[in-house]
Amino acid sequence: MYQTLSVDVDGDGVATLTLSRPEALNAFDLTMARELLAFFTTDAHDDAIRAIVVTGAGRAFCAGMDLSTEGNVFGLDESLQPTPEELRAHLTEEPYDEGVRDTGGKVTLAIHALPKPVIAAINGPAVGIGATMTLAMDLRLASEKARIGFVFGRLGIVPEACSTWFLPRIVGIAQALEWVYSADILTAEQALAGRLVRSVHPAEELLGTAQELARSFVVDRSPVALGLAKQMLYRNSAAADPLEAHLSDSLAMFWTSLADGKEGVAAFLEKRTPRFTGKASQLPRVF
Amino acid sequence: MYQTLSVDVDGDGVATLTLSRPEALNAFDLTMARELLAFFTTDAHDDAIRAIVVTGAGRAFCAGMDLSTEGNVFGLDESLQPTPEELRAHLTEEPYDEGVRDTGGKVTLAIHALPKPVIAAINGPAVGIGATMTLAMDLRLASEKARIGFVFGRLGIVPEACSTWFLPRIVGIAQALEWVYSADILTAEQALAGRLVRSVHPAEELLGTAQELARSFVVDRSPVALGLAKQMLYRNSAAADPLEAHLSDSLAMFWTSLADGKEGVAAFLEKRTPRFTGKASQLPRVF
Amino acid sequence: MYQTLSVDVDGDGVATLTLSRPEALNAFDLTMARELLAFFTTDAHDDAIRAIVVTGAGRAFCAGMDLSTEGNVFGLDESLQPTPEELRAHLTEEPYDEGVRDTGGKVTLAIHALPKPVIAAINGPAVGIGATMTLAMDLRLASEKARIGFVFGRLGIVPEACSTWFLPRIVGIAQALEWVYSADILTAEQALAGRLVRSVHPAEELLGTAQELARSFVVDRSPVALGLAKQMLYRNSAAADPLEAHLSDSLAMFWTSLADGKEGVAAFLEKRTPRFTGKASQLPRVF
Repeated sequence: MYQTLSVDVDGDGVATLTLSRPEALNAFDLTMARELLAFFTTDAHDDAIRAIVVTGAGRAFCAGMDLSTEGNVFGLDESLQPTPEELRAHLTEEPYDEGVRDTGGKVTLAIHALPKPVIAAINGPAVGIGATMTLAMDLRLASEKARIGFVFGRLGIVPEACSTWFLPRIVGIAQALEWVYSADILTAEQALAGRLVRSVHPAEELLGTAQELARSFVVDRSPVALGLAKQMLYRNSAAADPLEAHLSDSLAMFWTSLADGKEGVAAFLEKRTPRFTGKASQLPRVF
Repeated sequence: MYQTLSVDVDGDGVATLTLSRPEALNAFDLTMARELLAFFTTDAHDDAIRAIVVTGAGRAFCAGMDLSTEGNVFGLDESLQPTPEELRAHLTEEPYDEGVRDTGGKVTLAIHALPKPVIAAINGPAVGIGATMTLAMDLRLASEKARIGFVFGRLGIVPEACSTWFLPRIVGIAQALEWVYSADILTAEQALAGRLVRSVHPAEELLGTAQELARSFVVDRSPVALGLAKQMLYRNSAAADPLEAHLSDSLAMFWTSLADGKEGVAAFLEKRTPRFTGKASQLPRVF
Repeated sequence: MYQTLSVDVDGDGVATLTLSRPEALNAFDLTMARELLAFFTTDAHDDAIRAIVVTGAGRAFCAGMDLSTEGNVFGLDESLQPTPEELRAHLTEEPYDEGVRDTGGKVTLAIHALPKPVIAAINGPAVGIGATMTLAMDLRLASEKARIGFVFGRLGIVPEACSTWFLPRIVGIAQALEWVYSADILTAEQALAGRLVRSVHPAEELLGTAQELARSFVVDRSPVALGLAKQMLYRNSAAADPLEAHLSDSLAMFWTSLADGKEGVAAFLEKRTPRFTGKASQLPRVF
């Protein structure tokens, strides 16, 4: 089905998405971009998938944009000369859109929009888009062999894939500035000290640990409550005023308390496992 | 005066607010919600109160929403079916408001709006709303016996009380996502490692340490300068541009430098203790 | 050229800006304010300057506002009585502007607007505006002798210079509130533990380390890519939605990939040092 990805879903709904161009260190090319976009905007929304772990085949996570591509490596149409206003106006139009929009950003926006936990299991080098794509995932676990680099500055380009939105929220503005300015390759330990990754694991334990963590998030949980919580954490934390959170809180509490929340409270009082029936594909609209 | 709270104000204006339903582990019911709202919107604005320490009576801080309540535990009117637009429009209207607005959020918005330092002294279990109410307080000190849980996911409901606005600002987005997804009970040490609490103390030293810290914030300080600083830190840190901060900075410096700032500089130059006369109940409007 | 500053630019374009009123512990007076504003709004934009290290002459970094000034130490016109709306309306007008706008904020907004790395080398006491001016710099390195204090509360005034925008982004909202409430003088180690400073160094190694770090950011790098990255990190991290980042990402990738990005990729593929020709004074407009 996919040329550059493989997907495996276990019995608990934990999908493992593997970037699979090991001969090219899973470098990100336009085929992989299209396939990641397809996965996160369609397949991943299937209610049979409850959470996703993303890792790389072979010794790398993703070596970055495939610079060996013939021609325009970034997929841009150089004949276009957009202004900020034009791009804003055309953001949803084709084919203008296709020739200008940052490819990595299309992928990270799709990851971000998925109302399910997404965990990066960074098994080796994650460089450029290989690093920035993990920022739109909720948590990052690293192998001792992980190497992470926001190397754009060395290539004369900028950090992309919405990384300037995500990175400072994860590690703070000063650490983000230093890593982007330095454009160095970080060890797993440096990434841990800077709070980019949650934990560092022996290589052979990484994927299992990430899958176990994903499982702990979804088994006996309401997909509706989980999906709303993800939306609320990202959106409300970026709001100017807590009153915005109060609005979505009120609606989300209202709708969940009439549905999976009733079952959750009943199960708690009866000291039994809840049987939630809500679906992530049918989230109430709270924003 | 209160059924579920007790309040004690010392000679320096440090109020200790104790959640007092120890037989129910200080579980949050609609009476406690009303009383907290009354305290933070009226009593706490009295200029005799300079800072507030919040703790729990007995062995718990607050065990969360009282799920033993008969009927609708969340106090919602299930006959209402609000859309985001309707709720936004009706946010200040009654009784629609009462049937839909998140109860915990009314309390945390009131804490947030108080222009005085508020410190949580988390003496034991703080779960659900017992955890999220502390996020609107400025600092959290924990006893070694504190246990903190954002357990909403296990009940099929969402984190409330504006917690999705506050928590990522305190601990970062990745830590916030993990704790909300896991819905686990954190130890005091885990909360400290994740920067949710400022410090951990032996149980018998917690309250005194928190009161001493509050005292250090207010004795010989201008309540006007302190109140403006709290407003500015929360509001400006959430603004899109530092120019917003420059606007309130300019006004706040203008107004304070004509009043308590004159006394402060004079006292500094004369090497004496300042005698500030400003009142938190009369803050200049800088936003 | 300057009375209160000295500037030295090395062969790699690393400028060292030294606050030079050592007899007054480099206290910030209106002359220094004017000169810092002049430096950061004009001189520093020269393409010969690639990055800036800011330090203090003698044993202090900057002891704060010079309170020994005769008359109105804050330079305000007390006959003005601005409302928030009036100040907002008049923010760019003179002389109203001059009598009301926070002096420190004019300086920090100019530092913030410079599309080049700015590093503080905090060699000794940095108090009041001496502390807050460093927050608009991208990174802070400290000598073991550094002492940093947000002491405004002791003077009856508020933290200024847009510090309530910057400080919580650097250290988190809870740490920012505590330091502003306490108004204490922090040691270098406390500042490091709270993530205000990046690293602490023996006094004699501080300046060299900061200059070396600045050099590592700019040698063989594109000033255009670096300048855009700085703008994007600050602006996008404060945006409500990652879609805002996607807009500037797309434009910045588009424009850099047609220019210095072409050279960067070519140099990478040819395993040679890139020769970038872009200039920070000619950044494409991406916002």
